[in-house]
Amino acid sequence: MNRKLRMGMVGGGIGAFIGPVHRMAATLDNEAELVAGAFSSDPKKARASGEKYHLDPKRVYASYKEMAKAEAALPADERVDFVSIVVPNFGHYDAVKTFLEAGFNVVCEKPATFSLAEAKQLKKIIQKSGKLFVLTHNYTGYPMVKQAREIVRSGKLGRLLKVVAEFPQGWMAGLISAPNNGIGRWRMDPKRAGASCCMGDLGTHAENLVRYITGLEIDTMCAELTSFIPGHKLEDDGNVLIRYKGGARGILYASQISAGEENPLAIRVYGEKAGLEWRQENPNYLYMSDPSGNFNRYSRGNGNCCDAARANTRLPWGHPEGFIEAFANVYREAFKGIREIAAGKKNVVVDAPNIDDGIAGMAFIETCVASTKSKTKWTKLLK
Amino acid sequence: MNRKLRMGMVGGGIGAFIGPVHRMAATLDNEAELVAGAFSSDPKKARASGEKYHLDPKRVYASYKEMAKAEAALPADERVDFVSIVVPNFGHYDAVKTFLEAGFNVVCEKPATFSLAEAKQLKKIIQKSGKLFVLTHNYTGYPMVKQAREIVRSGKLGRLLKVVAEFPQGWMAGLISAPNNGIGRWRMDPKRAGASCCMGDLGTHAENLVRYITGLEIDTMCAELTSFIPGHKLEDDGNVLIRYKGGARGILYASQISAGEENPLAIRVYGEKAGLEWRQENPNYLYMSDPSGNFNRYSRGNGNCCDAARANTRLPWGHPEGFIEAFANVYREAFKGIREIAAGKKNVVVDAPNIDDGIAGMAFIETCVASTKSKTKWTKLLK
Amino acid sequence: MNRKLRMGMVGGGIGAFIGPVHRMAATLDNEAELVAGAFSSDPKKARASGEKYHLDPKRVYASYKEMAKAEAALPADERVDFVSIVVPNFGHYDAVKTFLEAGFNVVCEKPATFSLAEAKQLKKIIQKSGKLFVLTHNYTGYPMVKQAREIVRSGKLGRLLKVVAEFPQGWMAGLISAPNNGIGRWRMDPKRAGASCCMGDLGTHAENLVRYITGLEIDTMCAELTSFIPGHKLEDDGNVLIRYKGGARGILYASQISAGEENPLAIRVYGEKAGLEWRQENPNYLYMSDPSGNFNRYSRGNGNCCDAARANTRLPWGHPEGFIEAFANVYREAFKGIREIAAGKKNVVVDAPNIDDGIAGMAFIETCVASTKSKTKWTKLLK
Amino acid sequence: MNRKLRMGMVGGGIGAFIGPVHRMAATLDNEAELVAGAFSSDPKKARASGEKYHLDPKRVYASYKEMAKAEAALPADERVDFVSIVVPNFGHYDAVKTFLEAGFNVVCEKPATFSLAEAKQLKKIIQKSGKLFVLTHNYTGYPMVKQAREIVRSGKLGRLLKVVAEFPQGWMAGLISAPNNGIGRWRMDPKRAGASCCMGDLGTHAENLVRYITGLEIDTMCAELTSFIPGHKLEDDGNVLIRYKGGARGILYASQISAGEENPLAIRVYGEKAGLEWRQENPNYLYMSDPSGNFNRYSRGNGNCCDAARANTRLPWGHPEGFIEAFANVYREAFKGIREIAAGKKNVVVDAPNIDDGIAGMAFIETCVASTKSKTKWTKLLK
Repeated sequence: MNRKLRMGMVGGGIGAFIGPVHRMAATLDNEAELVAGAFSSDPKKARASGEKYHLDPKRVYASYKEMAKAEAALPADERVDFVSIVVPNFGHYDAVKTFLEAGFNVVCEKPATFSLAEAKQLKKIIQKSGKLFVLTHNYTGYPMVKQAREIVRSGKLGRLLKVVAEFPQGWMAGLISAPNNGIGRWRMDPKRAGASCCMGDLGTHAENLVRYITGLEIDTMCAELTSFIPGHKLEDDGNVLIRYKGGARGILYASQISAGEENPLAIRVYGEKAGLEWRQENPNYLYMSDPSGNFNRYSRGNGNCCDAARANTRLPWGHPEGFIEAFANVYREAFKGIREIAAGKKNVVVDAPNIDDGIAGMAFIETCVASTKSKTKWTKLLK
Repeated sequence: MNRKLRMGMVGGGIGAFIGPVHRMAATLDNEAELVAGAFSSDPKKARASGEKYHLDPKRVYASYKEMAKAEAALPADERVDFVSIVVPNFGHYDAVKTFLEAGFNVVCEKPATFSLAEAKQLKKIIQKSGKLFVLTHNYTGYPMVKQAREIVRSGKLGRLLKVVAEFPQGWMAGLISAPNNGIGRWRMDPKRAGASCCMGDLGTHAENLVRYITGLEIDTMCAELTSFIPGHKLEDDGNVLIRYKGGARGILYASQISAGEENPLAIRVYGEKAGLEWRQENPNYLYMSDPSGNFNRYSRGNGNCCDAARANTRLPWGHPEGFIEAFANVYREAFKGIREIAAGKKNVVVDAPNIDDGIAGMAFIETCVASTKSKTKWTKLLK
Repeated sequence: MNRKLRMGMVGGGIGAFIGPVHRMAATLDNEAELVAGAFSSDPKKARASGEKYHLDPKRVYASYKEMAKAEAALPADERVDFVSIVVPNFGHYDAVKTFLEAGFNVVCEKPATFSLAEAKQLKKIIQKSGKLFVLTHNYTGYPMVKQAREIVRSGKLGRLLKVVAEFPQGWMAGLISAPNNGIGRWRMDPKRAGASCCMGDLGTHAENLVRYITGLEIDTMCAELTSFIPGHKLEDDGNVLIRYKGGARGILYASQISAGEENPLAIRVYGEKAGLEWRQENPNYLYMSDPSGNFNRYSRGNGNCCDAARANTRLPWGHPEGFIEAFANVYREAFKGIREIAAGKKNVVVDAPNIDDGIAGMAFIETCVASTKSKTKWTKLLK
Repeated sequence: MNRKLRMGMVGGGIGAFIGPVHRMAATLDNEAELVAGAFSSDPKKARASGEKYHLDPKRVYASYKEMAKAEAALPADERVDFVSIVVPNFGHYDAVKTFLEAGFNVVCEKPATFSLAEAKQLKKIIQKSGKLFVLTHNYTGYPMVKQAREIVRSGKLGRLLKVVAEFPQGWMAGLISAPNNGIGRWRMDPKRAGASCCMGDLGTHAENLVRYITGLEIDTMCAELTSFIPGHKLEDDGNVLIRYKGGARGILYASQISAGEENPLAIRVYGEKAGLEWRQENPNYLYMSDPSGNFNRYSRGNGNCCDAARANTRLPWGHPEGFIEAFANVYREAFKGIREIAAGKKNVVVDAPNIDDGIAGMAFIETCVASTKSKTKWTKLLK
């Protein structure tokens, strides 16, 4: 299948944040082209979006149901190869299901679903479909995150003892004194966002980052979710202590009211022999140090990076890559999988987050909520 | 012209560095599509490149001459809207001339030409053509560079006194003890690169950055170009003292043998009231400080950034943008110009480097060479 | 009393770490001179220490009991003005008590005592003595910590919402695979260190830093102390969630097994309007930022720093001050208090940690232990 | 001579900047005590200074001539062991001469003298005296500067190719628009400061740092000194290109009008194999990198530092040392030399700047001035 892949999109109309990121990421390498979409439930906005994205009006649909049906009816050499789902959380499950069952590969925004139960159900649907499902926990697309994972796997840190993952943002701080400005946002609405605001938006990214780099599995958690914004029905701040299987300890926290913070997702992993540190706001570098005073910086693009880090790099050292490029790495892996499936390969595995990550994320969210509500606090990870 | 622009490319076949960057940058915003190219003088490589880039084989040409002719003969709604020239320096002039005269807009890699004389000649051709010519001094595409320019223009620094611009790289250091590994590279070959290696490759970027941010014009220069690599006929290191018109002083240096440096282009601008600092390797931030202890960081994506900085941003604060996005900003401005020209507008001006920047860069290079050769050293900027 | 103060020391013989720091800090400003000491229970080492410190052998004592008696018997213009206690935790209480009751001012290493009960008892002794007691939570001596405190007090952050305090070290990581190397250390011995190793050594510093900067009082805590080193009877890692009175939330953690970390005590304070960040390893700077993109760095020595920050600075901006200078600021305040007491002033208050900080620290330690042992986890701060 | 050394001081009265630094540095390790001084030519200020420094009024002198005579007349077990000269440049020569000839060791502020001729003359006097002369180019006292030197000497960088040394400050920028505020300062007065303001104050520190770390000797220089402050008879900014013997190239610049800069003395050294970077404002770290992507941070206090770095450290890793501690390292070496001389040792050599550094500094200054005045610019280093 030596041609560009044809991309469809659900959500992501004019004015959206994450939709354009998906489009830029998917097309960065000249390996895909946006050709169809159901961008908005507002027909006017949907149409305007299609125009802005230079689509054939016939393939700008009023709903994803219509889109799935119409695209499936197109000749094989016209219809989309995959669909990116970028609607709010409550819409993920049905949209993903619809396209999978119509025979399309799916790329979906995180968190995977509205609830853990939905995520587990979705796994069955994916398995039955034989199609690719990729979840855009995009931070794991950064080359230096892959380098970190490789270092952990290589044993250079020794047995892991402790992980600190943090993801504070401050953009909601202003809502505390002026809550009316923001209460309408979908992330803050339990009906659209689900059981969590901050942990669903940010905490699951941190959780997935830990999972990807360390391979550690959560045993029990002690979480405290807090809502500082008056009237906010979900949390805007969350702090979690974690016991991983095997004995490692963890701290994971996320926040939307940490005034002055931009997007400093960070992870520190400590093993018996050495420690690692990576910070998303300056993502081209990874730091490893040990108690003997050795401190090494790994810099993206150099020959001393591992295969996975090098394969996910587009530019030489010193030419910064950023968020879009990392996101594009998730798509690149998805495309690899889509091409393999098209070529008839079975049990395709690619280096991109999948429904197991989605289930883990939903379990994390629901356990955070359960631990906060419980009196005993330390709570076994829900399954 | 509400459609994607059609892009052609000269050079940039498989294995090239800067060609792919142009492709990613040009297509990042879904506003252009690569449709034609003369990727290599090696027909096999040209063909393979066309396949890899998913082009119609008919539009993969054996030479840019052939391409210009064939594309010009295509119907208006098929032929390319612009051509990106990414061949080594010695090929710029004729390729640019060919496409301009065939009626195409041109985006060209820097330095503009092989010599100052060529650059001045090219200006006439451009003016005559009525087409857009954009030179990819891409570093000026960074939002925080635009913020720096705005701060200088606003008078917040006061009268400018001093500028320090540096661009050391280290990738050639290894050639000093093993010169045979690299002497064949085109950048080191006076017949292909022109009068300069290091200053043409890196120094002109620094010079353009100073020019863009400060608006200062060079009066006289005292340069020392040095070749550390045995057998290297051009320089691999250059240090320059500059006197700007109006009295400001400057230091500008570039290097290819500064072992361990990656790509730390940096500029510091000092005025009577305050100073600025920007470093390319962490490009999302700009620093301003003054003698009273005030130190402010401007961070890309925030509301306190100027219009130009905000208009050249794709992501919120804290989601790092990098080299490709800055490069894409140059293309975005080029597309604006191309669409204006297509709409019949005259004297189109866009916020992207043009032939005047190209002439300034060539004058800078040739004055560096002249100053190095002269005995008096302080040399008036050549015209 | 326009003369140098006469200093005595208990502990701090040759080879000690913190004893020399006390000596350098106390004498940095030419306002004190070491004249007497009970440096070691090993007479040979005590004598050698006295020689090395250039003391009159008559004032090098075999025990602090002897020292207190002998010094008290000296004429007023010879005997020490204050004594610094730098022995392991279990020795604090009696040594401090002995000197206070013999009529001497005391500077004491943290944590204040072996237990909370001792600390409360000590408060009574101090009050009765009319002498000065200063506890060297030295990190609060840094000028930029004082600046942080002033910013919080000024209301620039608005109501405080969240505090993250961290103090990971890695020097014990090596003991995990070679525990025999370290088990003998006094910090790891419950009989000498008390109920805690890591939280007593590091956690209390973090706790005191939060207390000093924010003024927040702990309501309840949920702590998990872990011992990773085989055979270690105390903890070498501790993570704590905190609920402060008034509703702010906190994370505080400390570690001795975070391989590769040196001494990165750090605090981030988030209010409704803005956030602060200070990091001990680069202590001359303090950062304040807000959700509008404003990001300001305060730099020690500048006129825009508050009175307390400026009063605790010895050098101009850009000339780094470090750990010893911050420690010396604690002593400088102590000296101010000692001179005031000598001048007959009552109820002397100085800007240095005192027994209330000591009690708070011991309460923090014992609550960490209680929370870890309890099943309910969230534990009211012990009193 | 197991006793504290007795220190005298010339200059450094109340309100001075560098005098107190000398006192703190000299006494930090409890190895010296200030006992005498000629602090000011103003008798009232001299007396007040003596009181403030807790001196015996008999040893607070009206002039250094008187002081030298009186101290020399004291019994050997009372008189000062060394004198620190901290008056403005024009006073160095005679004061140093006076004390050397009176039989005292001397520590002197930089630059060594008022002129190169004086510095050469001083060398003869020193040699004849048999006493120690140490020049406080204090930045070479930083442990990580010693580490840098060791790395260069070890050959890890390979043959040196390029050095960039920078020392921009901004504190005089305000004088440009308000020159009357500052013209009276001694640094700006040719009669007191000598032939240079900026290069004497800052440039010589940078020059000495290069000399200490690399061992490179200047062959020729091309300098441009500029006075931006109206009415300033000396320069407040200087930029220099350097050719070192053996072929290495250098850039060295210093400034007092670089608004917003504090004290960022920095050096980067590039060899065939690797490069080094050290920045004074965060002095506890040294960075080494190479073209293969290896990037190592050396951190003060660790076992992987060289002997000289470890011997000049007082605190463990992560506990920042700063300017005073580095200054104290110069004194520590001086004391070693003073004790050796007292013990009868001949040809004492210590790791501290001496008159050869002073001569090199004065030659550097005068060559900067000559190059600026000349028309040929590239000027052989004066001798």
